[in-house]
Amino acid sequence: MSAYDDLIAHQKDTQALSEVMGRLGWDQETMMPRGAADQRAEEMAAMESVLHARRTDPRVGDWLDRAEASGDVARANLRLIRREYDRATKVPADLAKALAKATSRAQGIWAEARANEDVAAFLPTLAEILRLRREEAAAIAGDADPYDALLQDYEPGITGAELEALFSRMRPRLVDLRGRVLSSGYNPEPLKGHFPEAAQLALSAELAAVFGYDFDRGRIDKAVHPFSSGSGHDARITTRVDESEPFGCLYSTIHEVGHACYELNIDDAYLLTILGGGVSMGVHESQSRSYENQMGRSRAFTGWLFGKMTETFGNLNVKDADAFHAAVNRVQSGYIRTEADEVHYNLHILLRFDLERALITGDLQVADLEAAWNDRFAADFGVAVDKPSNGMLQDVHWSVGLFGYFPTYTLGNVYAGCLFKTLREDLPHVDAQMAKGDLSGATGWMAQNLQTHGGLYEPGEVVERAARAPVSEAPLLDYLDAKFGAIYGV
Amino acid sequence: MSAYDDLIAHQKDTQALSEVMGRLGWDQETMMPRGAADQRAEEMAAMESVLHARRTDPRVGDWLDRAEASGDVARANLRLIRREYDRATKVPADLAKALAKATSRAQGIWAEARANEDVAAFLPTLAEILRLRREEAAAIAGDADPYDALLQDYEPGITGAELEALFSRMRPRLVDLRGRVLSSGYNPEPLKGHFPEAAQLALSAELAAVFGYDFDRGRIDKAVHPFSSGSGHDARITTRVDESEPFGCLYSTIHEVGHACYELNIDDAYLLTILGGGVSMGVHESQSRSYENQMGRSRAFTGWLFGKMTETFGNLNVKDADAFHAAVNRVQSGYIRTEADEVHYNLHILLRFDLERALITGDLQVADLEAAWNDRFAADFGVAVDKPSNGMLQDVHWSVGLFGYFPTYTLGNVYAGCLFKTLREDLPHVDAQMAKGDLSGATGWMAQNLQTHGGLYEPGEVVERAARAPVSEAPLLDYLDAKFGAIYGV
Repeated sequence: MSAYDDLIAHQKDTQALSEVMGRLGWDQETMMPRGAADQRAEEMAAMESVLHARRTDPRVGDWLDRAEASGDVARANLRLIRREYDRATKVPADLAKALAKATSRAQGIWAEARANEDVAAFLPTLAEILRLRREEAAAIAGDADPYDALLQDYEPGITGAELEALFSRMRPRLVDLRGRVLSSGYNPEPLKGHFPEAAQLALSAELAAVFGYDFDRGRIDKAVHPFSSGSGHDARITTRVDESEPFGCLYSTIHEVGHACYELNIDDAYLLTILGGGVSMGVHESQSRSYENQMGRSRAFTGWLFGKMTETFGNLNVKDADAFHAAVNRVQSGYIRTEADEVHYNLHILLRFDLERALITGDLQVADLEAAWNDRFAADFGVAVDKPSNGMLQDVHWSVGLFGYFPTYTLGNVYAGCLFKTLREDLPHVDAQMAKGDLSGATGWMAQNLQTHGGLYEPGEVVERAARAPVSEAPLLDYLDAKFGAIYGV
Repeated sequence: MSAYDDLIAHQKDTQALSEVMGRLGWDQETMMPRGAADQRAEEMAAMESVLHARRTDPRVGDWLDRAEASGDVARANLRLIRREYDRATKVPADLAKALAKATSRAQGIWAEARANEDVAAFLPTLAEILRLRREEAAAIAGDADPYDALLQDYEPGITGAELEALFSRMRPRLVDLRGRVLSSGYNPEPLKGHFPEAAQLALSAELAAVFGYDFDRGRIDKAVHPFSSGSGHDARITTRVDESEPFGCLYSTIHEVGHACYELNIDDAYLLTILGGGVSMGVHESQSRSYENQMGRSRAFTGWLFGKMTETFGNLNVKDADAFHAAVNRVQSGYIRTEADEVHYNLHILLRFDLERALITGDLQVADLEAAWNDRFAADFGVAVDKPSNGMLQDVHWSVGLFGYFPTYTLGNVYAGCLFKTLREDLPHVDAQMAKGDLSGATGWMAQNLQTHGGLYEPGEVVERAARAPVSEAPLLDYLDAKFGAIYGV
């Protein structure tokens, strides 16, 4: 066996074990009995220490030094394994353990603080998580930018400065569009009615199939916060149900189907290698977002969905397919990121990006975070935050140490814009297909041009290859202007 | 840290990882998408090799040599860890991995062969599994009896010779009872009707609670073959539903509740130690069997269940509680072990024990297995096997390498006989309680006298402590004679 073969054989078990870890996470959110929580924490910690030991195994360093790569796939394998090894070995084991422990505890403290609207109860914990993550960033980055170091966990290759420039270009056009829409005088009616759980779940499964989800290699369950989990031949999704509001269920499903199809459509040759998963959070989000928004919320598809939902639920109390399309794409001021429409969504991300970057660089102190959040929210959204659960306590991310994750949501939207522009050029009849409930053209294009590559290319590169153009915010902003311009007549 | 403390700390992660392995098995039977089977085999193999490496870690041998035990618990920990270490270090890692992989694949091949009634399609796989298990037995046992070596995985301390002697004493009385019952001229009517799935599952959950199952640390799902899985604070069960026959569902549930309650009622002090699980398959089966049979199929409890089922399903088409009790305990010739009544059940086990022992010792070849099975079945059950799925292809066990497992079912019945005899002496009013649907006395006795000890004592010892008498087949056979004598008037 060559050093390369030894390395890949070792990596295969590491990948298999990290799939197991993912399945435990899935089970925890969907199936686990409540009383098993403490025991599960021990099980996860034991798995984590097995994975950490494998990732920092000195033999990996030795194999990497001696391995010779021939061909793109081998080069990509070595590049990604090297990156994982360097990151893992730079972080002292004690620090990794302290972080795992602190974040696992912090999630409960955050949830309680949010329920009690008690920022003060969360701040010491947040400060501790932040301290540990800054220490980790310093261990990885040395003298380089600590926020950039954290970004690499989610979007390899990107820098905070690049994101700042991108977001600064986006902000004026988003603010302008928001202003025009909200002052248009048109306020679409939401759906009214009772939408039984069983019917929502049945339609949800039908939509999943329509968007190409393979139930032979996945399944749908309910979860409080929908997520997708797993890769290779076992990529599961979850959804949620509110019987007074069906879009939450249906569009969560389509969103998670986008994530899962990305994993399921990766070339089988990469199965249980480090190339066998989605390449970054941003590219992942480009798939879930384009399935949900560019496809699922298009005028073409909502026309078909209007018929389907009327069939399923009876009278929806909207007058026609145009009114239904407007209801699906209703723009409304609101505090909560996860409930935001396409116009507001990125403004939420821009706010979080600036604040978390300042926290990591040390320009903002935890004690000043609430005021900074509320000031910025008032400036960008024109509304004062009424309570912490509608403000800085709304997202779980920071409590579990996810600094550097938020910007990938907007990056995903930007990537989706680029990809869909080219998809539309390649598939001139895509609207006619989607209007008949046929998503095979659009999802097939994504599978062939992007999803199949897994981790073979870097995030920006795989998007640029598929879109055949440099990454730019323009296609997304043009799409938003055109879409909401049409609905709101602005 | 002392050597003992180091050892226990190491063992804790090993136990946690083996819980994870168990959860993967549960997922495979209940939730896993079909298309994920090959990937799951890789995941299980990777976990197995992690567990194997931990169990054979030379530091464990060193700690065991240096550890000083004070007190029963520490002594039991060292005894069981030593046993696990000795077994694991005797089996080459490659062989362990090959077995894990082969058995995971073999299960599918067996299922297909059974569906197609195609013995020939299964034989090469069975031969391969047998070859690997014999190799393993030889590695463990050296010159000693290979079947005895395999028995230790399921019932530590027992030998094939002891089982042969026990079973030889049982056989004449079982054959005699069977003859008397079948020639009694009484043939109780089974239930007739349609028993909707939802109602069966709801009653199933109610029965689980009645028998003391803690849903905060467990859950019930459907599976083709009911099983229980997990220990500590996460012990799950499964059941099956046939809408034309409700007892399969209800008594499978009670049976699995017996297994799960054993795990859940072990002293919390043993959590994530090697003492924190049921001590043997036989003792485990003593719990599931006594819950199912001595409690669940007693005249007292079936009286209560008759009312409950009439409430749930309406008219059951049996004339009274006595006829219902006879329907629950109907004795019938039949091919299938898992459908066998209490009179026939042990005869099934005796057959399998003799055949599998001969396979392992080499006295029987795989090619001759079908003929041997069919001859023995005709001799013991008075009927010719009509098709392989009613004969040697009926059980999954051998396909997954479980040689030495079958006898623990009958051993469990024997233990249950001993335990329940003493339980009845200690709880003179137990029938009056069970007749009201109150199982707390009987299950509480089991929890306090047996379940709480986990792996603290050896299997025979823990039964003898609880029963305050040596293990003997007499109480079981007396119980069967009395019960079926009363129902059939023989």
